[in-house]
Amino acid sequence: MRFTSEQRLDDGVLERTFTLDGIPGVLWTPDPAPTHAPLVLLGQPGDLTRMYPRLAARARRVVADGYAAATLELPGCGDRPRSAASDAARADLRRAIQAGEPVPDEVVDRLVLPLVDLAVPEWRALVDAAVELPGIGGPAGLAGGNISIAVRLALVEPRIAAAVLFAGSRVPRAVLREARRLTVPLLMLLQWDDEGNDRQEALDLFDAFGSTEKTLHANMGGHTGVPEFEGDDGNRFFARHLR
Amino acid sequence: MRFTSEQRLDDGVLERTFTLDGIPGVLWTPDPAPTHAPLVLLGQPGDLTRMYPRLAARARRVVADGYAAATLELPGCGDRPRSAASDAARADLRRAIQAGEPVPDEVVDRLVLPLVDLAVPEWRALVDAAVELPGIGGPAGLAGGNISIAVRLALVEPRIAAAVLFAGSRVPRAVLREARRLTVPLLMLLQWDDEGNDRQEALDLFDAFGSTEKTLHANMGGHTGVPEFEGDDGNRFFARHLR
Repeated sequence: MRFTSEQRLDDGVLERTFTLDGIPGVLWTPDPAPTHAPLVLLGQPGDLTRMYPRLAARARRVVADGYAAATLELPGCGDRPRSAASDAARADLRRAIQAGEPVPDEVVDRLVLPLVDLAVPEWRALVDAAVELPGIGGPAGLAGGNISIAVRLALVEPRIAAAVLFAGSRVPRAVLREARRLTVPLLMLLQWDDEGNDRQEALDLFDAFGSTEKTLHANMGGHTGVPEFEGDDGNRFFARHLR
Repeated sequence: MRFTSEQRLDDGVLERTFTLDGIPGVLWTPDPAPTHAPLVLLGQPGDLTRMYPRLAARARRVVADGYAAATLELPGCGDRPRSAASDAARADLRRAIQAGEPVPDEVVDRLVLPLVDLAVPEWRALVDAAVELPGIGGPAGLAGGNISIAVRLALVEPRIAAAVLFAGSRVPRAVLREARRLTVPLLMLLQWDDEGNDRQEALDLFDAFGSTEKTLHANMGGHTGVPEFEGDDGNRFFARHLR
């Protein structure tokens, strides 16, 4: 992890940008440095520059409760090289949605599975690098981002002890099968009228998770309308499982 | 409201039993008396003696956050006169469940509608009497109990400003129609594997509520397995809407 910039935010948060094997990311830690801050990975849909304001707001809230927060640019997003196959799958997805047709499973597979396969090892490397830093330690939490990446990451990375999932995108059948094997405590957020998501599919996914402690929070509104208070609820969920 | 007993619980809570038009109930208030405690009505499935331990635990938590809490025996429960028609409807319900058959709508109507018609005016009288007491004032919140009573009460009683609903019993079609006209903020709790309740019917009810601010919290487990932390979540919901 090579730090590329550092600034102290006015509310006791040290924000550092970094690259990790050439991939840009951001790390937020309590300032002054804590003795032991559990790490919370902040998922996002890609393009850190565009997402920065929302991520920084979320990070401040997480750090205020004594955690470290980190995020990493997704494959094919921001300045990272795009994939022609992903672009083609995304175009097929848009075509189906615009035509009002159901999105074929194979399109979801082509769009999401390569992203999951590439991203998950990168985020595991992020955990490796972050817990090497003084003051940061496991267990780690995972909050938001593409739900398929989150499910795979929570399944294969044993340091993830709890996950807040956002049911906001289509899930490949292979990931649905992986969801059944998840056992960590989960809090899944669902926007009831998410324009780009299928509500029943989200409820089926919630039902599928193997975790014995899982909670669904459904709120009114569209994809980007998650209420402010869910940030606090997420922090309390982490307080129950990461402390 | 005629007080029949009074005891100081060891955590700053004054518990008083009372009768209101002959109906027994319990009132919990902060001790010493507050200047202005919003009232939270604690719903329950009937039989205050049987429900007392759970109600007192919930009341302590509510009062600890500066509210007054009150509950009232339901019609046909505890020492109140039973209704032959309700007993017959309950027997029909049990027969259908034991036979593994769907419970006919008309059985749900016969079981629930008379209870709602009788209970709602009694609980409105409870609000009338409670807000007359020094230190208790509106707006009021409503927490739990039979969801059909709660929906009707929240609809017709303008002092109810927010309601935590428990999706744990069958809802007559007439109450489902009333649910569409509800506008107060709602937090609905659903036990995902509630043995006596239909999950899809509960999700349809949540969808039907007219309120623009409504949140669903679904947790694993059966009817009586609502996790402890939902009590805190309910308090924070009331803090957003009753303060």
